[in-house]
Order: sequence, then C-alpha cells, then structure tokens
Amino acid sequence: MRVCVIPGDGIGPEVLAAAVQVLRVVAPDAEVSEADAGWATFQRVGVALPPETLGAAREADAVLFGAVASPSHNVPGYRSPIVALRRELDLYANIRPTSNAQQRSPDGPVVDLVVVRENTEGMYIGRERLEDDGDTAIAERQITRRASSRIVRAAYDLARSRAAAGKANPTVTIVHKANVLRVSDGLFRTVALEIAADYPDIRTEEMLVDVAAMRLAQHPERFDVAVTTNLFGDILSDVACIHGGGLGLAASANLGEGRALFEPVHGAAPDIVGKGIANPLAAIECVAMLLEWRHRVDAAQRVRAAATAVLTHGPRTPDLGGSATTAAVTQAVIDHLAQ
Amino acid sequence: MRVCVIPGDGIGPEVLAAAVQVLRVVAPDAEVSEADAGWATFQRVGVALPPETLGAAREADAVLFGAVASPSHNVPGYRSPIVALRRELDLYANIRPTSNAQQRSPDGPVVDLVVVRENTEGMYIGRERLEDDGDTAIAERQITRRASSRIVRAAYDLARSRAAAGKANPTVTIVHKANVLRVSDGLFRTVALEIAADYPDIRTEEMLVDVAAMRLAQHPERFDVAVTTNLFGDILSDVACIHGGGLGLAASANLGEGRALFEPVHGAAPDIVGKGIANPLAAIECVAMLLEWRHRVDAAQRVRAAATAVLTHGPRTPDLGGSATTAAVTQAVIDHLAQ
Ligand SMILES: CC(C)[C@H](C(=O)O)[C@@H](O)C(=O)O
Ligand SMILES: CC(C)[C@H](C(=O)O)[C@@H](O)C(=O)O
Repeated sequence: MRVCVIPGDGIGPEVLAAAVQVLRVVAPDAEVSEADAGWATFQRVGVALPPETLGAAREADAVLFGAVASPSHNVPGYRSPIVALRRELDLYANIRPTSNAQQRSPDGPVVDLVVVRENTEGMYIGRERLEDDGDTAIAERQITRRASSRIVRAAYDLARSRAAAGKANPTVTIVHKANVLRVSDGLFRTVALEIAADYPDIRTEEMLVDVAAMRLAQHPERFDVAVTTNLFGDILSDVACIHGGGLGLAASANLGEGRALFEPVHGAAPDIVGKGIANPLAAIECVAMLLEWRHRVDAAQRVRAAATAVLTHGPRTPDLGGSATTAAVTQAVIDHLAQ
Repeated sequence: MRVCVIPGDGIGPEVLAAAVQVLRVVAPDAEVSEADAGWATFQRVGVALPPETLGAAREADAVLFGAVASPSHNVPGYRSPIVALRRELDLYANIRPTSNAQQRSPDGPVVDLVVVRENTEGMYIGRERLEDDGDTAIAERQITRRASSRIVRAAYDLARSRAAAGKANPTVTIVHKANVLRVSDGLFRTVALEIAADYPDIRTEEMLVDVAAMRLAQHPERFDVAVTTNLFGDILSDVACIHGGGLGLAASANLGEGRALFEPVHGAAPDIVGKGIANPLAAIECVAMLLEWRHRVDAAQRVRAAATAVLTHGPRTPDLGGSATTAAVTQAVIDHLAQ
C-alpha cells in the first residue's frame, strides 16, 4: 500500500507526523512517500501544487493531507492545493462524519451524522472575474446533473450501509437553497429527488440551507446523512463538528473512483503552529478512515480503539481542555496500540 | 405614520394580525394599509409582487412584512417578493439581532450580537442560466465595491452606536470566503478593511464563513457585530438565532435610505399554518424595531417591556414549550401594555 503524505503548511506537518507514526505501527508494510504543497511551496517554487506532487498523489493508493494556509488576499497564480487536488483527482465526495460517542453525557441525545459534500463544482470552480470598472466582481457557481447525481447516490449508498450496520431510521436530508437559486439548486434538487426514488428503504427529507445550519447547530441528533453542494457542505460540516469534540477531532475523506484523500478538517491553525500542541487525533482518525477504505478493517478498529482510550483517559491537548503536547498524545495512542 | 402591512403566506397573516393589534395600541395615529404578495397572490394574479403592492410599500413610512411561501421548484415567472422588495426599495442592510437576555441562565455567557447582512446582491441577483445541454446550471454571484462599502459602514456605525449605549469591546467581524472566492470575496474583504481603518475605535477581526458559522453556533458570546454578504448572512443569522429563543423570537430590519421593512425571520412555517399557534413575538418585536426606527423610543420600549413580561411569565406558544395560542399571547402583550 503506497501512501502519499502531503503535510502542507501550519500544523499540517505536526499532525501528519503523528499520523504517519501511527500508520507505521498498524500497517508496517505501508510505503510512505512525502510531497510538497501549500503556501510555503508557492513562495519557494511559484506554484502551490507542483506537478510532481499531483503525480505522486495520482499514483499512490491513498493520500494523507495535512493543511494549507491560503492567503486571504488575491495572489496572482495562487490556487488552493486542496481545492485543486479534489478536482484534479476527481475526488467528488467529501465525507464528513460527526459523532458524540466520546463526548455524550449519559442522558444526552445521540449524535451520529455525516455531511456528504459535493467536492468538484459549486462555488469552487474558480471562475471569477472583475468587470472593467474594477468595482464589480462576478463569481460563477456551477451545478451539473452529473456531479449532483453521483454525490446524491453516494449519500444514499452511505445511508444504506449505515442502516445495514444497525443505524435506525436511515434518512437522507437534501440541503439546498432552491427558493432563491431556482435554476442551479433547482437542478440539484430535481436530480436529488429523482435519485431518492431509487432508495425506497431510505427516508428522504429536504431542507433549505439556512434552516439546515440552524438545525445542525441545535438538533444534530435529528440528522443521519445530509447531502449538499460544495460551499454549503463546507459551512454545514464545520457547524456539525462542534458536537463531536470540535475541529481537533474532525476528520474527512475525499473519495473518487478508486482514489481517496484523507484530511483533518481543522486547517493550518496559524495561532498554534510551532507550539507542539496541535491535537493529532483528527489526523489519526484519518489513518483509521484510510485503513477502512483499504478494507483493513481490523487495523482501522485498533487505531480507533486506541484513540478512544486516549480521549477517555487522557492525555489531552489544550483544545480539549488538557495541557498535553501533540507528541504526548501520539505516544499515548502508540502505547495503547502496543497493548 | 403610514405603515404598509404585507401579510403574505403561511403564518404571515396570523402573526401580522397580532403585530397590527399591538401597533394600534401604542401608535393609535398609525395609518395601516394592507397589500398583497406571495405565492397565493402569484396563483391568483400571476405575479408574486403586484405593482400596487410595490407602490404602496414605496409610499409608506415603513413596511411590516409577514412571510412568503416560495415554491422549491422553479416556477416560470415566479420571483420571491421579499427578495424583490429588498432590491426594488434598495433596502441594503438586513439587521438581525440576537440576544439571550430572556433565556440566559444566571451564570451563562451573555449573547448580544447582530448579524449585518448585505441585502441587494451576492447570490440573490437572480442571474442564473441553464446551458444548452440542460444539465449544467450557472448562477452568478455579484459583489460590488458600492454595496460592500455601504453595508460595512452600516456595521461599523452600528457597532459604534452600541458602544455608545454601553456595549464593551465593540468589534466588527468581517466574514467572507476570500480563500476560495479570491476575486469576489477578495473585493469584499479589501473594501471592508479599507473602511475598518475609518473606525479606529472599533476592533476589527476577520473570519472565514465556515469558521464563523461554527463559532456562532458554539461561542456566540464572542461576537458583537458580524458583517457579511447576502447568502452567508442568511445562513449565519439563522445559526445565531438559536441562542435567542429560536426563530419564534427572531426579528429583522431591512433598511435603506429613508426606507425600512421589518419582518420576522421565521418564514411561512407551513407545518403550523392555520393552527393558531404561531409565536407572534417575533412580529411584535418587529413593531418595536419599527417604532425605534421612527424615533418613537418610548413606544418601542413599552412594546419590548410587555413582550419581555409575557416571555417571562407566559403564556407561551408551543415553540417555547408552552401550549398557548397566538391570540392568547397577543392578548397578554396587550394587557401588559394597558397596565
Ligand atoms: C481550506 C479551504 C479551501 C477548504 C474548503 O473551503 O474546502 C476548507 O475550509 C475545508 O473545509 O476543507
Ligand atoms: C425566504 C427567503 C427568500 C429569505 C432569504 O433567503 O433571504 C429568508 O430565508 C430570509 O432569511 O429572509
């Protein structure tokens, strides 16, 4: 199994070092190679995603991605490498699970939901222009039947496999803003409801994105699988993750046909970079997701059991109220794996 | 004072009837006229916002708007009347306050924030097209210097007046997605930071929209005034309102130059229409906002005091855990006003 590791910027390298340590313990046969991308890369070589990195990602069996620190101002020639990787590798399904199994108070509601985010189009196509006056900018949002239909299918298939694994009341919530984006989200909605008809075993509901964001914040226990377009999924998955211990624990899979990239949701976290206190557990959960995707179910379960033990008994990084370092948490996970 | 009332669809007429009753008590001189808009209007006359309604809204000193039930499917010729009113009357600032003053547990954090939402452009310009294949839809998102600069100014002015009224640490949070929408949100961000420089007395922070949604859900006490583009504001204000007793209490002002329209945030609520149990307090808070905007500060305070008393002692509608009707809550408010 060849794993391409792209640490990137900020705390990306810190948490991926931890993830690779764990990977080496549970999958000693993994061939790990490293490749460059991100803002530092752009400053060094003038391109944020060098062709060699794209090539390495293409050839690997799976990619582990850290984080990139995109500048907020418009730098000519710069394009977010993670957005580019998703498109270039056609990783069309961004799978973002949230569970409160580790945080739940005994009588609290059970949160176990997945945001399934379309990952290749929407507002992320990079088609923007400044009109002649320089004072009017237009961005295009693209919704296609093809991308909508495959992401909605991915959502229903996921709901079905969760139901097969014991999840009650399997439901897909189709999230859109078709009352305003009547043509584009109208298309997404129409396609989604067509596909829903192929899954009579799954309950379908639809929700406007503003209402969905509110309900995810307030009543996450009412969701199973929510499927939506790219930018809405970006926002909704961040809202959802507060119920699962926050960004420090949120992991995601970017899946395409026979390809996959795993990344923690937290991003570069410039405020804590270099302090050695980044929570490595999201990156370690990425390793579990990667192993599961490669059908190494036992290894995935070992990683999750070790991470759960550390979450329960400590040590914990500051984002979870502790004072442990990245290294200490990682070592604790590895110690549990050795038991 | 001429007030144009547009009840609309769903529970709009139910809650606006309550609001008008309250308005008549505290401003007996108000000339109230009613005008049609919405889905039922469209079905009757083929247009959702008849020209007479637009004319009446234009001539009034203020508009009270209920709700409209926009169809989710794309109906040729139908356009959301509230979106049209905002644009036609150039009501560029959508002001959406959330406070937990009525819900706070004694040792809980104080939530007192306002989402200031740009109201005339962004994804709401209605420029969408289906490409020839019928399987690709494009929506245009427009960001201009003019609209960005006036909404950001409105936010800073609001932060300043809140500071003058005693709010500590006045802060404006500029919310965007310039790491992806580098040109359009790049323009919004640049303009916003230029204007920020005119307000050295106000702290400025910037936040990506996904992070802002998460933080508004989890740490609303850290916000004062958040300013953002149209659709982001739509989503963020719904998230924020969970901390203020939910949609049943959320009111909003749509402000332009010398014009204003007030509307509850809850929408048509088809699930409870006709049951007589809609919470009228958001619409009644709209009356308070309207009076305040017309400098009738005493009358506004009387309405708020009465609403607060009812919120504290009941009766309460089902959304707040009670079992009272719209009529009972409204009568209780009016009884308090008479005291
Ligand atoms: C870093 C950024 C481009 C990215 C996105 O917007 O997709 C991030 O927010 C995410 O959720 O993965
Ligand atoms: C009804 C709809 C068009 C509207 C919007 O999207 O602005 C509503 O959600 C709101 O927030 O006022």
